[in-house]
Amino acid sequence: MNLNKANGINLTMLCDFYELTMGNGYFADGMADRICYFDVFYRSVPDNGGYAIAAGLESIVQYIQDLHFDEEDIAYLRGRGLFSEGFLDYLRNFKFVGDVWAIPEGTPIFPMEPIITVRAPAIQAQLIETYLLLEFNHQSLIATKASRICRAAQGRAVLEFGSRRAQGIAAAVTGARAAFIGGCAGTACTVSDQIYGVPAAGTMAHSWVQMFDSEYDAFVSYCRTYPHAATLLVDTYNTLKSGVPNAIRAFNEVLKPLGITKCGIRLDSGDMAYLTQKARKMLDEAGWTECTITVSNSLDERLITDIIQQGARIDSFGVGERLITSKSAPVFGGVYKLCAVEKDDGTVIPKIKVSENIGKITNPGFKKVYRFFNRETGMAEADYICMADEVVDDSQPLMICDPQERWKKKLMENFRAEPLQVPIFKNGELVYQLPSLKEIKTRCAYQVSTLWPEVKRFDNPHQYYVDLSPKLMELKDRMLEEHGHAQI
Amino acid sequence: MNLNKANGINLTMLCDFYELTMGNGYFADGMADRICYFDVFYRSVPDNGGYAIAAGLESIVQYIQDLHFDEEDIAYLRGRGLFSEGFLDYLRNFKFVGDVWAIPEGTPIFPMEPIITVRAPAIQAQLIETYLLLEFNHQSLIATKASRICRAAQGRAVLEFGSRRAQGIAAAVTGARAAFIGGCAGTACTVSDQIYGVPAAGTMAHSWVQMFDSEYDAFVSYCRTYPHAATLLVDTYNTLKSGVPNAIRAFNEVLKPLGITKCGIRLDSGDMAYLTQKARKMLDEAGWTECTITVSNSLDERLITDIIQQGARIDSFGVGERLITSKSAPVFGGVYKLCAVEKDDGTVIPKIKVSENIGKITNPGFKKVYRFFNRETGMAEADYICMADEVVDDSQPLMICDPQERWKKKLMENFRAEPLQVPIFKNGELVYQLPSLKEIKTRCAYQVSTLWPEVKRFDNPHQYYVDLSPKLMELKDRMLEEHGHAQI
Repeated sequence: MNLNKANGINLTMLCDFYELTMGNGYFADGMADRICYFDVFYRSVPDNGGYAIAAGLESIVQYIQDLHFDEEDIAYLRGRGLFSEGFLDYLRNFKFVGDVWAIPEGTPIFPMEPIITVRAPAIQAQLIETYLLLEFNHQSLIATKASRICRAAQGRAVLEFGSRRAQGIAAAVTGARAAFIGGCAGTACTVSDQIYGVPAAGTMAHSWVQMFDSEYDAFVSYCRTYPHAATLLVDTYNTLKSGVPNAIRAFNEVLKPLGITKCGIRLDSGDMAYLTQKARKMLDEAGWTECTITVSNSLDERLITDIIQQGARIDSFGVGERLITSKSAPVFGGVYKLCAVEKDDGTVIPKIKVSENIGKITNPGFKKVYRFFNRETGMAEADYICMADEVVDDSQPLMICDPQERWKKKLMENFRAEPLQVPIFKNGELVYQLPSLKEIKTRCAYQVSTLWPEVKRFDNPHQYYVDLSPKLMELKDRMLEEHGHAQI
Repeated sequence: MNLNKANGINLTMLCDFYELTMGNGYFADGMADRICYFDVFYRSVPDNGGYAIAAGLESIVQYIQDLHFDEEDIAYLRGRGLFSEGFLDYLRNFKFVGDVWAIPEGTPIFPMEPIITVRAPAIQAQLIETYLLLEFNHQSLIATKASRICRAAQGRAVLEFGSRRAQGIAAAVTGARAAFIGGCAGTACTVSDQIYGVPAAGTMAHSWVQMFDSEYDAFVSYCRTYPHAATLLVDTYNTLKSGVPNAIRAFNEVLKPLGITKCGIRLDSGDMAYLTQKARKMLDEAGWTECTITVSNSLDERLITDIIQQGARIDSFGVGERLITSKSAPVFGGVYKLCAVEKDDGTVIPKIKVSENIGKITNPGFKKVYRFFNRETGMAEADYICMADEVVDDSQPLMICDPQERWKKKLMENFRAEPLQVPIFKNGELVYQLPSLKEIKTRCAYQVSTLWPEVKRFDNPHQYYVDLSPKLMELKDRMLEEHGHAQI
């Protein structure tokens, strides 16, 4: 079962309308089969952070495998009165036959480097733009935010609690998946467990407490039903005067006779630094030293950092809206840009998008990207974008240079060069073994551990080096020069 | 076809896990059939605005009609090892038999008033919490943001262009629907047109221009294919030096001989105030006075207000990420709170949630809400929350008073009292005729026109009155008093 297996809507139709009008235009101009290269890349890290986490590839693979137009789609398009019957026939027999390379999910990624590269006939390459960006942008956004929040928690568990504030069904369900990749231990969202295997957990809402004649009765009842998973919500009336004392009474009444020492309380309001220290003291004095304390309520990496620094006694965090919407930075700005076209003889013609805003100028040509790891420390030192036909010889030192500030050079020595993109589709066939979600999560944790702490700072992180090969830099310079003079 | 017919997932399983653990607990305690009342309400308007727009009800209706557990869901839950076989049997035969009242989509709504009220057996009422909130929160968020942005555009068309930056599939598809309700004229998202009837439009991307040997060739080709819908993207290389002149040449070459005078250009970068004034002048001087100018690129209500004020010459706006994620305020904080339970004899026992944060204290009891319209001006003057069994006699003057600042009183005279909530489900049966999307959009435009301009200000809007009936205020005071003393 997967979210992309459209029995409600055909995701192929989740495209921007201009992808179809352009497709029809390419068809009319005999350009349907012209091979194009598009790069997915992004320009800046959300929250001014130092790195992002790639996610969304599994959904993209499923989408590409399922690309098709149903008769009702054709009928809808015909009804728009814009498309030729020849083009509609093309869509009726649509099959993706292109190549796709991508950086695996869970990998730290940096601005301007190609994350996903598509080589396909024009209509096909254009059609998939919206969905690829949507899925990559959304899941990378949430995985990136989760990575920040989990880092703030310094080893304590972070649970994703945000379904009710998510921006739609998929934001909740795939959002929980992305949060798990980024470091969360689990989710409150049941269906994300069922379909993705993100561990789902949960105990009670305030309404449980209110349904009973007293808070104590509510706690006792819960402990009786779930003696081995009794986490009690203690802030319905008054955390320290009522909630914690009633929880202790219920633990004593129900769990103690059973010899159970593991239990928990959850706080969902109030000052977390103060209340958790007081609650910890009360629990310990009553002998419930193994009782865990979970807090929730408008948490993010900032507040978690603060309350830990203030001595809060917390075992796990439930994080809701500020994670599932990435509230402080709710947009991941991935773009999909044409970087080359192939002539009939197979020659690759690089393309560039010029802009008055230098950040919006693209890197032309069919490219690939390496990550350089120091062989001694194992740490990631720099990424290196070069033409697809270049090979880095990591047995020799290599001088790299900043593409903007060219006087900034760095000699790479004793390094291992790892190509980041791997083949996903070849001639429309899947050639990639999708890793399990746990493998992706493990990869993410390991890869993030290869980043220097300076890159992971919340504020003013060190800018990780993403350099261009001399060959690519020369191509870019030449094309900019040509466009600056000639393009009128 | 609808998005809620689960794209491969059973939306009934899109619940917080605690709704199931509580359900199992209610079942074990013999409380499965205890009738509960829950209110959906929200506490503050996004962007510190003066009003929000209700949306999402249609999706909620479809969800409730489709509530069920499949055998694979039961198997998954059994595998968790927490649920009794009796409870799993209950789920296997699950049918929603409750009552639902709601404020129709497209209606302006204000903090603290009940938007949706659910009366149902405990397990059922609890189970639907997450999905109701998710859909109400998301769609109301986007409809509210769209209402702001469209107001800033002062009658010019606003098109929703954000699918690629949306937080998942549903955020794109139902987001476009909500944006249409809030005032957008259309969307770029094809499938939102197909399934909801939100008009989809689009012309070309930068890649179209780059695919041809020259910008001029790209424009001529597009004009030939779509002579009656030729909107050309003019900023691929240089808007004023290349894009606009080439567009004029292409219009002259292809459209003029056909006698076509309607056409368009789109700008996606650069200074919109400056560039559109220059472009307008060039187009007019070339005789293309009917050529429209569309702009896109990081727009929202602030930037639109600014560039219009600076004399920009714009006919329509394409708004992307800042609308589809409501970037400046990406969370709509609707909550679902228990407000009453019924005893076996039918007596309704009000419930209250107390909090140290007074904004988090709920309004107890089974309630309803009126909107008071001035009979002379037709304008909305105040909302009035009262007990469900109260009836406002609008043939008589009525003194209303602020629930916090009780010295603030207002005498309502010559007013019409309109109950805002309407019955949606009765004993599990749908008793509401879902309006068409166009009807909802029309309702929204009309209802927003009944709000005083002071309420619609972007900054520091007048706070619309939402008052409580004396009976409700007395009940709330009494319950707070009881909890303040007795609840330990």
